[in-house]
Amino acid sequence: MQTELSEKLGVEYAVFGFTPFPAVAAAISRAGGFGVLGAVRYTAPDDLKRDLDWIEAHVEGRPYGLDVVMPAKKVEGVTEADVEAMIPPEHRRFVQDTLAKYAVPDLPQGEASGWRITGWMEQVARSQLDVAFDYPIGLLANALGSPPADVVARAHDQGVLVAALAGSARHARKHKEAGIDIVVAQGYEAGGHTGDIASMVLTPEVVDAVDPLPVLAAGGIGSGRQVAAALSLGAQGVWLGSLWLTTTEADLRSPALTRKLLAAGSGDTVRSRALTGKPARQLRTEWTDAWDDPAGPGTLPMPLQGLLVADAVSRIQRYEVEPLLGTPVGQIVGRMTGIRSVQAVFDDLTRGFEQAVDRINRIAARSGRS
Amino acid sequence: MQTELSEKLGVEYAVFGFTPFPAVAAAISRAGGFGVLGAVRYTAPDDLKRDLDWIEAHVEGRPYGLDVVMPAKKVEGVTEADVEAMIPPEHRRFVQDTLAKYAVPDLPQGEASGWRITGWMEQVARSQLDVAFDYPIGLLANALGSPPADVVARAHDQGVLVAALAGSARHARKHKEAGIDIVVAQGYEAGGHTGDIASMVLTPEVVDAVDPLPVLAAGGIGSGRQVAAALSLGAQGVWLGSLWLTTTEADLRSPALTRKLLAAGSGDTVRSRALTGKPARQLRTEWTDAWDDPAGPGTLPMPLQGLLVADAVSRIQRYEVEPLLGTPVGQIVGRMTGIRSVQAVFDDLTRGFEQAVDRINRIAARSGRS
Repeated sequence: MQTELSEKLGVEYAVFGFTPFPAVAAAISRAGGFGVLGAVRYTAPDDLKRDLDWIEAHVEGRPYGLDVVMPAKKVEGVTEADVEAMIPPEHRRFVQDTLAKYAVPDLPQGEASGWRITGWMEQVARSQLDVAFDYPIGLLANALGSPPADVVARAHDQGVLVAALAGSARHARKHKEAGIDIVVAQGYEAGGHTGDIASMVLTPEVVDAVDPLPVLAAGGIGSGRQVAAALSLGAQGVWLGSLWLTTTEADLRSPALTRKLLAAGSGDTVRSRALTGKPARQLRTEWTDAWDDPAGPGTLPMPLQGLLVADAVSRIQRYEVEPLLGTPVGQIVGRMTGIRSVQAVFDDLTRGFEQAVDRINRIAARSGRS
Repeated sequence: MQTELSEKLGVEYAVFGFTPFPAVAAAISRAGGFGVLGAVRYTAPDDLKRDLDWIEAHVEGRPYGLDVVMPAKKVEGVTEADVEAMIPPEHRRFVQDTLAKYAVPDLPQGEASGWRITGWMEQVARSQLDVAFDYPIGLLANALGSPPADVVARAHDQGVLVAALAGSARHARKHKEAGIDIVVAQGYEAGGHTGDIASMVLTPEVVDAVDPLPVLAAGGIGSGRQVAAALSLGAQGVWLGSLWLTTTEADLRSPALTRKLLAAGSGDTVRSRALTGKPARQLRTEWTDAWDDPAGPGTLPMPLQGLLVADAVSRIQRYEVEPLLGTPVGQIVGRMTGIRSVQAVFDDLTRGFEQAVDRINRIAARSGRS
């Protein structure tokens, strides 16, 4: 599972692991992959600094990267308060009514909402970058659109490769024009924000659209067979996010959520706007059903929806309110049936990959015989 | 691209081609694949007999098969008139209003609706089978659910393998229990009726669920890279439907529809209930938009919706009313950019497959070095 790209980045396997947990990111890099820490949930630069210090201390000198959510378009002078003021009272009522229906308690006084995602705001993302560029990161990934030109230039000045997620060939071509180095083709089956084109179709389309830029396949990958499939489609590596949620190194802080992930089948996710206002794949819950119900008020556009539900999501998680409890995760959740270490995941991926390659070679040899 | 299954069936390539056109089915088998004629649109047994005679005369002794839509559950004593009577007047009005809005003319007097799909009715499907079993078919496929036990037994008595489509591992296990021989794992990205689990996830799930039964991967496959990916996922072959619609042998009888197919990108399809009442992927048109619009009356369940729109769809096709003109097709439509012969499609698939295998072997060898 080594490609030109993994060689260039100095890792053994072309397996890129996206995770919000520093311990998972470090373990991925130690196992021979490329750990990428998701930064969107860091509001205070010092928290990010603390976690990057931790990774530095535990990554044994292996390469790792950072994933931010930085909009290419700048919205001048809009504060969080401005955005809050745009939320209709009807939607606030719907949140309160839904929480009341399930008797979800308030957060303890003084406890801040952990789900207050402000990393998408440009000033927050930029303060994250100011921290990150002090560390020897090898990759900077952007989850929504191409990063601004000055950020790409700054990364390249420091020898940092820039990656961006794309759900269509058109988005991928825009990334190429913006000078980025790697495109992550995010298929319909992926966890988090996705378009509606599935990996089987999307990956080769994006490969052809941005050639010769390297492409990572994301969405639906959790076994060596799927890694082999993604590389057959022309990808130079795979980008895995969901699979790490049930590793021993993950820090979900919710036994109930872990149980739900282990029990869920591939048909138990939904692509819903409930979490951020843009379609994002996640566990289907009574919370997503409420937002997706035509009888309800429906979701608000990004970033309003994210601010609207931040406190509610924190409360649901804090008290593990099972019917409402969810998380972004892809259709691969059906294969996440036990807690394993990150190293065990890698052992499984590499073994499965070798078996898949043997199988395809037997098929190719059989063709040669006929 | 030869597997145990393709050897068993006596074909050179494990490429199964589903098509409503006898000329395409015969050409697929002549090119070394396995042509499967879709029978759902044959109302009169004599028409099916005529087309199977034609295939026999043109297939050069190669194996071929038939695809029917036979419900496992028998609905006793329900006639087409009974079903027609269940359609609400509001829905009939919506059809008339939508056709009027686009000034779609009536069919010429005496011209029957070509889109009157009655093959799903058990008596029609059974009369199709009575015809088909007089021919040396090698495969009988069922598009909706497991075929009835007596049909499976009759096929096996005649040495005919039975295949059934599945959109989930649960459906696939039911097929296995029903004694069928091959499961077609139909991914979200496929044309026609689909579930919402994408091929990258669905194929290995179904492979594991019905092991040791052979699985064909369907959905999103139109190049040798995608064949290699599907076989990497554990499939014993691929099932392609959309790709043949723009072959020289296809008989769409609508230059406008062919132009729309050639122009469409992978994002120009939609999974809609507009055609049959069950979610089926098709070109997105102003017709599917009208049915999917929350402001409209919405679709009716199968088989009501199919009967409701049969005449309208015939009129739209007869007069090539471009904004409304569509067809079932998968996301692979983005790769259908020119008219080619079936043989040229096979040449492209085999060449692409070999290149993908070479590439994956280079990657595997690189890993061996590290």
